[in-house]
Amino acid sequence: AKPRVGYFYTGDRSGKAEADRLKKMRVKDYQSLPVVVKEVSTVYDAIVTMFLEDVGTIFVVNDKDELSGILSRKDLLRASMGKQELENIPVSIIMTRMPNVAVCFEEDTLLEAANQLIHKQIDGLPVVEKRVENDETFYGVIGRISKTTITEAFVSLVNGDDETGSQL
Amino acid sequence: AKPRVGYFYTGDRSGKAEADRLKKMRVKDYQSLPVVVKEVSTVYDAIVTMFLEDVGTIFVVNDKDELSGILSRKDLLRASMGKQELENIPVSIIMTRMPNVAVCFEEDTLLEAANQLIHKQIDGLPVVEKRVENDETFYGVIGRISKTTITEAFVSLVNGDDETGSQL
Repeated sequence: AKPRVGYFYTGDRSGKAEADRLKKMRVKDYQSLPVVVKEVSTVYDAIVTMFLEDVGTIFVVNDKDELSGILSRKDLLRASMGKQELENIPVSIIMTRMPNVAVCFEEDTLLEAANQLIHKQIDGLPVVEKRVENDETFYGVIGRISKTTITEAFVSLVNGDDETGSQL
Repeated sequence: AKPRVGYFYTGDRSGKAEADRLKKMRVKDYQSLPVVVKEVSTVYDAIVTMFLEDVGTIFVVNDKDELSGILSRKDLLRASMGKQELENIPVSIIMTRMPNVAVCFEEDTLLEAANQLIHKQIDGLPVVEKRVENDETFYGVIGRISKTTITEAFVSLVNGDDETGSQL
């Protein structure tokens, strides 16, 4: 976009314009691909997946690909400290289970997602879409928001190269 | 601060003002307390410390309290997957060792720290102060910057309640 140079009525220079601009950042514009394992996967498989994909959070889905739980690095570290064989424990035993999993939607603002990460003290959120079947609600997993996502958005904001802004 | 309302020459409305404001955010205004273990601590102790303090990164110091290494959750998870007794392995065996540890300083901008987190693919940075003894440089650990720090700064920015801004 062309830089607009000249006199403008700004009304309020106390930061409202910046805040408004930042508030327009949406989950759908920043989300990453989700990393998912099945409920029947072993804890060992989940740890290998976490290393291969280099993520802090893994989402667990049932056989209809609906969100059933979530695994953090802490959950996996805790399990690996135990005396059990990791190859014999399904992730469904150690995961945090629905409906206790915090989720977000593509239309949510990045601020709402970041607020959840901070206040719920979690590293990642699944981006989900609602599916209603026989009056029951399920969630399909379509993306991932993490503290890495927010850190990247922060950097792009400060550099002025985010999509809602325009910078030469 | 009082809101300044009226006509101002803005010069450039392409986001430069916001970016300038964000660029003034400094590490010293956002850092947390560092979580530290000694080189002779065991991997088991480090894992317990990580859970108790609920951090993703632990800094390792020598007997003069100088930074000698760093431990991530991934390092500890990798170690706990091994066959060795965690009570018998000192952290100095598995840590990433100086000078291969990324650091930052209190006067650095939060943007510089966030850039390091993203480009070096790490979760946390020690905030250090330089000490020169007999022509050798050492680093004392005085703080911690993590992706959680950056996510909190992002939230405070969007809410307009960061220290460099002023919002009613």
